[in-house]
Amino acid sequence: MASIKVHGVPMSTATMRVLAALYEKELEFELIPVDMRAGAHKQEPFLSLNPFGQIPALQDGDLTLFESRAITEYIGDEYSEKGEKLMCPGCNKVKALTKVWLNVEGQQFDPIASKIAFERIFKGMFGMTTDPAAVQELEGKLVRVLDIYEARLSKSEFLACDCFTLADLHHLPVIHYLMGTDSKALFESRPKVCEWVKKITARPAWAKVVDLQKQ
Amino acid sequence: MASIKVHGVPMSTATMRVLAALYEKELEFELIPVDMRAGAHKQEPFLSLNPFGQIPALQDGDLTLFESRAITEYIGDEYSEKGEKLMCPGCNKVKALTKVWLNVEGQQFDPIASKIAFERIFKGMFGMTTDPAAVQELEGKLVRVLDIYEARLSKSEFLACDCFTLADLHHLPVIHYLMGTDSKALFESRPKVCEWVKKITARPAWAKVVDLQKQ
Repeated sequence: MASIKVHGVPMSTATMRVLAALYEKELEFELIPVDMRAGAHKQEPFLSLNPFGQIPALQDGDLTLFESRAITEYIGDEYSEKGEKLMCPGCNKVKALTKVWLNVEGQQFDPIASKIAFERIFKGMFGMTTDPAAVQELEGKLVRVLDIYEARLSKSEFLACDCFTLADLHHLPVIHYLMGTDSKALFESRPKVCEWVKKITARPAWAKVVDLQKQ
Repeated sequence: MASIKVHGVPMSTATMRVLAALYEKELEFELIPVDMRAGAHKQEPFLSLNPFGQIPALQDGDLTLFESRAITEYIGDEYSEKGEKLMCPGCNKVKALTKVWLNVEGQQFDPIASKIAFERIFKGMFGMTTDPAAVQELEGKLVRVLDIYEARLSKSEFLACDCFTLADLHHLPVIHYLMGTDSKALFESRPKVCEWVKKITARPAWAKVVDLQKQ
């Protein structure tokens, strides 16, 4: 039995973020489904794993963690010798660039992009209706972020440096969903962003995450 | 001349976050004001420091960083031997707890609390009017976060462990502003949260940040 347990569901962007990191590190793990429709994430025993009642939670031996971005950083640190490095290699000054772009994802990209995914995809799943005005406003903001990404990606192959890092990986789940919507055009019309999206979504570890959704 | 330069203004919550970390580490630095009213942050040369056009940016020798939370982590790593530790001491498993609560601040607390500060304080500064319905809705959400903090702080002295870490420090700027509003009651009515707020706002390094606002 794997010592690493992920409590979550393969459709959840935050769960996908953690699964992608585990596959990049070639770690064995057990995915323990959380019955979201029954509200299992808002009740015990899940609340003892994450008091905020959000998936995913990770258990590694007797350690329990939540917040997907904290979990992926832990995986990167604890299993630094396995699989992909997931951080810019080098001194603290170089590592700091990974942190800058990790925060760009969490503070600049995700608050906009995940709301577009909610409008365009998840609302439909929950029987709600997309608000076109909200989508238009959000896409106007996303364009400004993607213009900065385009400039950045003309200077380095990936966001933080010339290596694939967690800063790129953290974008994968929401980009995966947006590429199935009309928002795709915003990414594809920017050559460097388009190339970056192709590279990061083509990673074998990511294919495994997407495969889990089909089971 | 100090090798560390902070481009920002002492009223900005994100700038205050970085200043607090520098003072905790007892590092010398130069604060270079950015003329926000003239829109200097949206023009060169500032955009070369941070393409997102947001303060603060940090220069340490030839390294340039933005995103306040990435900057404080860099300061913690690069100057680990100076001043306060700012991370839970120990192995990766223990350090991961700092990361969990760093992400809780960035993803759970700040998106709500900074909007309340905007409604209650910054709107007034910019000649805009507070929206009481928005404040009420946001405070309803903040209460749920603070209830979880109350439970957490009855198990450990600070959020991540029994030591003051960046996870606590990152809360300081927004809490500082909210303590000057009616939202103060939400913090003071929870004994452990109230005690924690008192402890973190009483730190000498924080007093220096607040003093900078008075100059």
